[in-house]
Amino acid sequence: MRTDSEASVIHRVTRYDGAIGKAVDDVLVKEEPLEIRVAGEPVAATMRTPGADRALALGFLYAEGMIREIGDVGRAGHCGRPGMPEYGNVIDVLPRPGALLDPERIRASRRGTLISSACGVCGREQIADLMQRCQPLADGRSVRAARIFAAQDQMRQSQRVFAQTGGVHAAAAFSEQGDMVACYEDIGRHNAVDKVVGYMLETRNITEGEGVQMLTVSSRASFEIVQKAAVARIPVVIAVSAASSLAVDLARALGITLIGFARKDRMVVYTGEVRAVQSAKGLTADH
Amino acid sequence: MRTDSEASVIHRVTRYDGAIGKAVDDVLVKEEPLEIRVAGEPVAATMRTPGADRALALGFLYAEGMIREIGDVGRAGHCGRPGMPEYGNVIDVLPRPGALLDPERIRASRRGTLISSACGVCGREQIADLMQRCQPLADGRSVRAARIFAAQDQMRQSQRVFAQTGGVHAAAAFSEQGDMVACYEDIGRHNAVDKVVGYMLETRNITEGEGVQMLTVSSRASFEIVQKAAVARIPVVIAVSAASSLAVDLARALGITLIGFARKDRMVVYTGEVRAVQSAKGLTADH
Repeated sequence: MRTDSEASVIHRVTRYDGAIGKAVDDVLVKEEPLEIRVAGEPVAATMRTPGADRALALGFLYAEGMIREIGDVGRAGHCGRPGMPEYGNVIDVLPRPGALLDPERIRASRRGTLISSACGVCGREQIADLMQRCQPLADGRSVRAARIFAAQDQMRQSQRVFAQTGGVHAAAAFSEQGDMVACYEDIGRHNAVDKVVGYMLETRNITEGEGVQMLTVSSRASFEIVQKAAVARIPVVIAVSAASSLAVDLARALGITLIGFARKDRMVVYTGEVRAVQSAKGLTADH
Repeated sequence: MRTDSEASVIHRVTRYDGAIGKAVDDVLVKEEPLEIRVAGEPVAATMRTPGADRALALGFLYAEGMIREIGDVGRAGHCGRPGMPEYGNVIDVLPRPGALLDPERIRASRRGTLISSACGVCGREQIADLMQRCQPLADGRSVRAARIFAAQDQMRQSQRVFAQTGGVHAAAAFSEQGDMVACYEDIGRHNAVDKVVGYMLETRNITEGEGVQMLTVSSRASFEIVQKAAVARIPVVIAVSAASSLAVDLARALGITLIGFARKDRMVVYTGEVRAVQSAKGLTADH
């Protein structure tokens, strides 16, 4: 395959319309594994679309509780040398000189997310675990419906790799004023969110009120999307498609406004008790 | 939330059309964690839609190389007792009396799929690893375009949970004659494929020519979907949406015909060198 850009390749395919096939060039989204290490120790491997690997690694480690603030982090870079076959697919995040990324914290985090050694695996425990790390979000300003529709539309217009390939998810963050803070694309919806959060970590003081108000995702809203939003203190999560039962349970427990099927001027509000959506007439809908 | 069925719950939402909100009941797909154990040892945890947990566990363990044939497997059942909160979310797969599920094989498999301890993480190595376990599929009969469109359509008509919730993936397997062998839905596209493969394992002798010819998925085609099809010896993989670069690389290496954007009477054939798609006129398209 020829390389088209960092995120895509060109591949010869046969396109059928009915039973008639025609050979054409198609653009495919790149999918490659990334191994994330902390101080040389492998902690995760994920299939991702190359690009923004540093943001992806930082966002992932933040969501998992392995780093607590950007001040924990020193250099983060790809292992090996350019030209080696695996170069670019292993990233090592080093602690800031003087800081310590506690391996015990890493192990504790991994127990919770990948393998549970205890018998009690159920949604309730996963929510309880997260709530130990993560306070519910405070009531905030209400969100205008028009701003939600505008955010979803702005993300859609920024999905450049999707426009070429039709095979990639996106996530974007928006400020209280409705400005787009960041937008990333990735073959994995969770990776796209990690990239957004990683970017936020480096550019804003999330815990000091410099966070963002809305996270939009081009996918469904699952448990892990809401989890990542909660850790990044984003009070409003907007998905293009449906929410799962556990995503709704978690959003309610953490005071997150969860919105699905946001398309043009329609949407479904799953949990809106905390910061109700404000209608165009200045009224607040009854939840 | 009220329980609607094993796979869904009813939840009160506010549906907005423009700025006007209306409270209505909505049906959400269930998402709950499942811990998979082998002989008491936890080997994986996945978020899944409940139902067909045995098929999911068997399919997953088969794809990971932890079980090689159904003869390896004895009882598989949920841990705990009905009524306990986590009951139903932990499944333990026991070896058949006299058989041994080698823990070393489990560890070796997990190294490859979840965490790589070696530095060399790149698509090429992952493909090479899989090809050690998995011979390329032999050339087989060609596939009629009409049969591909019919299979995709039949899966779509069988997506009952999707019809209610709009938030769940599906996978289905079809015989050489075009008959639907199995169709499962799950919030995770990989889980839906695992359930199909788990069902196939119990009902057919996959390695003795009783396999299926087509796997359809309601999602994009990523590396892991092609990987699972390869292990289950399914020569034709058909996705509703796009394929990734690594999925195409793997399909080509393993002699799998990979088809994407299969909708109504259109499709894109990414790799068709092995068993070319036969047109309605009996001609074979030039790849």
